[in-house]
Amino acid sequence: MDIPKDHPRYDSLVTRERLAELVKKGLVTPTGLISHGRGEAFDYLMGERTTDSALRAERAATAYLLEAKRPVICVNGNAAALDAERLISLAEATGSKMEVNIFHRTEERMAALIDYMEERGAKGILGRNADSRILGLSSYRALCTGEGIYSSDVILVPIEDGDRAEALVRMGKTVLAIDLNPLSRTSRTATVSIADEMSRALANMITFANELKNSAAERKNILKGFSNADNRKAAVGLICDHLRAAEGGR
Amino acid sequence: MDIPKDHPRYDSLVTRERLAELVKKGLVTPTGLISHGRGEAFDYLMGERTTDSALRAERAATAYLLEAKRPVICVNGNAAALDAERLISLAEATGSKMEVNIFHRTEERMAALIDYMEERGAKGILGRNADSRILGLSSYRALCTGEGIYSSDVILVPIEDGDRAEALVRMGKTVLAIDLNPLSRTSRTATVSIADEMSRALANMITFANELKNSAAERKNILKGFSNADNRKAAVGLICDHLRAAEGGR
Repeated sequence: MDIPKDHPRYDSLVTRERLAELVKKGLVTPTGLISHGRGEAFDYLMGERTTDSALRAERAATAYLLEAKRPVICVNGNAAALDAERLISLAEATGSKMEVNIFHRTEERMAALIDYMEERGAKGILGRNADSRILGLSSYRALCTGEGIYSSDVILVPIEDGDRAEALVRMGKTVLAIDLNPLSRTSRTATVSIADEMSRALANMITFANELKNSAAERKNILKGFSNADNRKAAVGLICDHLRAAEGGR
Repeated sequence: MDIPKDHPRYDSLVTRERLAELVKKGLVTPTGLISHGRGEAFDYLMGERTTDSALRAERAATAYLLEAKRPVICVNGNAAALDAERLISLAEATGSKMEVNIFHRTEERMAALIDYMEERGAKGILGRNADSRILGLSSYRALCTGEGIYSSDVILVPIEDGDRAEALVRMGKTVLAIDLNPLSRTSRTATVSIADEMSRALANMITFANELKNSAAERKNILKGFSNADNRKAAVGLICDHLRAAEGGR
């Protein structure tokens, strides 16, 4: 692609081109690109950085993963495309299983995504032989594995669909969502809502996992002190502050 | 596509599928889908409706088009895909020329977009034989026609790139932008910034064009009373109000 080097949003355009490339390979769907754009807008509104509120959510989410009996990290097309490596590192750092679970499900796309993750070092990744269903959902997007999502107690869903997030909560699971829109149904429904760009969020969570893995008391303290409602409210407030500052800036 | 009818964002998903379809035909670029997603997020933040502030901007922009000597309406891939018909109707209602002008320019894509517009009734649409350049831009995205964009005095740019909007302003043109992000460089730079979904904005502008076309005094009054800076500030304020209301709603 011939993105002019003098374009002020060069980096962002390069990431976009990478996602567009993975559409051609069938890993990302065209509508996944639109979802990415929605996320970009919220990231922009929060100043394209990890806010204090997001950092608190990332700490709490990491504590939940480490406290879990059967933690699972969900992987969809956008998540794999944005940062497969850190998804794998976080799974290793927290002892979580990984399962590929996609909205636009075909067996070809599932296989391509699992291959993509395995080429980057993922071991024992689940999803191919779906033998269970997420309760209360119609169509193929309900399919999951009994060993992974179905029997998980704590589940990290980066860039999830609101419907599915709600269904997972109804199944009694602790749902940890990475979703840049703090007002989305996913964010409203989740046990912990991380309003941060996925790759930044994962990097922080990997650091926290290493800090917290030998300290059960500290993990319990974090979970006791964390209010998702308050934290989401802070995220919304931050967007407003940033908007007003940006507006006042000229 | 198998979008489940019970999905709460069914309509929005159907529009997304339509844009995705036009990527396959080469009219919309994959990165155009990401831009659409960014717009969707801002539309969502303003309540998916035309705000009072947007309506004022639409009136002023229509008055500018009607007052112009050489008005031009720019058309890119996303604009054509979202609502070719209303772009054509507004050009007719305001006596504007239309010119296809795209960021990712290839002759094939230019021809496909012009064909697409002509199949929907566009007459004398410009863009194919670019003989001029928008000053101060590198690469193919500078190309335009002398008869259209280059010699225009007033130019409507739906969903424009910030770089090009700035370059058009530097050329001394009155730039009317339709851009859902009231803080984008395009919105900050434009003479009139319309923060509204393109199709809704065009529908309103067509109505205004019919109301204003025989009333020069009324048009001058509108332009005298319009402050783009105040109006943009109101748009930003509205996003905050809507955010806080949405947050308080649960």
